[in-house]
Amino acid sequence: MPSFIIKTTRREEIVDLTTKIKEIVKKNKTKKGKGICYIYVPHATAAITINENYDEKVCIDFLNFLDKIIPQGKWLHDKVDNNGAAHIKAALIGPSEFIPIKDGELMLGIWQGIMLCEFDGPRERRVIVSLR
Amino acid sequence: MPSFIIKTTRREEIVDLTTKIKEIVKKNKTKKGKGICYIYVPHATAAITINENYDEKVCIDFLNFLDKIIPQGKWLHDKVDNNGAAHIKAALIGPSEFIPIKDGELMLGIWQGIMLCEFDGPRERRVIVSLR
Amino acid sequence: MPSFIIKTTRREEIVDLTTKIKEIVKKNKTKKGKGICYIYVPHATAAITINENYDEKVCIDFLNFLDKIIPQGKWLHDKVDNNGAAHIKAALIGPSEFIPIKDGELMLGIWQGIMLCEFDGPRERRVIVSLR
Repeated sequence: MPSFIIKTTRREEIVDLTTKIKEIVKKNKTKKGKGICYIYVPHATAAITINENYDEKVCIDFLNFLDKIIPQGKWLHDKVDNNGAAHIKAALIGPSEFIPIKDGELMLGIWQGIMLCEFDGPRERRVIVSLR
Repeated sequence: MPSFIIKTTRREEIVDLTTKIKEIVKKNKTKKGKGICYIYVPHATAAITINENYDEKVCIDFLNFLDKIIPQGKWLHDKVDNNGAAHIKAALIGPSEFIPIKDGELMLGIWQGIMLCEFDGPRERRVIVSLR
Repeated sequence: MPSFIIKTTRREEIVDLTTKIKEIVKKNKTKKGKGICYIYVPHATAAITINENYDEKVCIDFLNFLDKIIPQGKWLHDKVDNNGAAHIKAALIGPSEFIPIKDGELMLGIWQGIMLCEFDGPRERRVIVSLR
């Protein structure tokens, strides 16, 4: 099962994984070019989402929105680990997405990209890609 | 891989896809009547969710809630395309859901329906259904 | 397809399903120990999420956050069933998660647990686990 590491550089950040995952789909062919691509991060303060990235302000808007509804420093868990907001964001967005594959290619829409959401960086994050 | 088009009629709208998807599951049998039904929209300002629709006010409540936490006209992307809120809503809800299949039927609960969320209509939206 | 029942004891509650689901994965082996574990609840006022549970305050923070953005008693559906907030929460979090399996084990991160979110209890909730 292919996986790769992303080194994030800030506390909060969105990293576009689309090119990397398209390469994996190209190299690891599915039967008859059909199937599902599953993307999963084994982390409790990061997440996977799908969104536009042609205008990078879409991703900034998304982080700003999350920060507004889930502000830093107001949570019970902050006394333990000081990352309560990051856990709530990760649980809300979720650690995974799937995308159908046809003719050997992801059926992403023109304006869809696959994004890693870092909510408690900088860290090394592992991205697991399963093709079936 | 079956897919179909939904023409939405308003800027924001929830369209119940349950009957249509049940028909597709009936026509396109899975091995031993078991498997997973994957529903995916290749759009960055629409989403798929699962909820009650017997009382249609459940869906109105859902749109009203999203509009309250993600108001129109306050986002950086609005200067580019004037649909910043729609992108945030789509990323938050996500473009997909899956439902297990048993004895040839979706294992939906009695009160669960499969919903297309239009956040930037009216438009033509494509719904991809993969059965495996 | 394995499934089990959880009896919740409060109106809102998060129940850790990780041990139970790991047992199911152990008993019901997948081909070559690889695959995907799909978790699904057939309910419109409950949800599945993945988060830390070592510090149980992470889950309390999550319920408190949801209650703050989706308060009780303010929704159109409340006149029908008095559980409008529960429906919005369930639609927002979603009824499912999937986790890749490798060498016969879930590829959960160290800090990830699989959680049932009860938003309208106490009730009996069914959890469906599909391994493929």
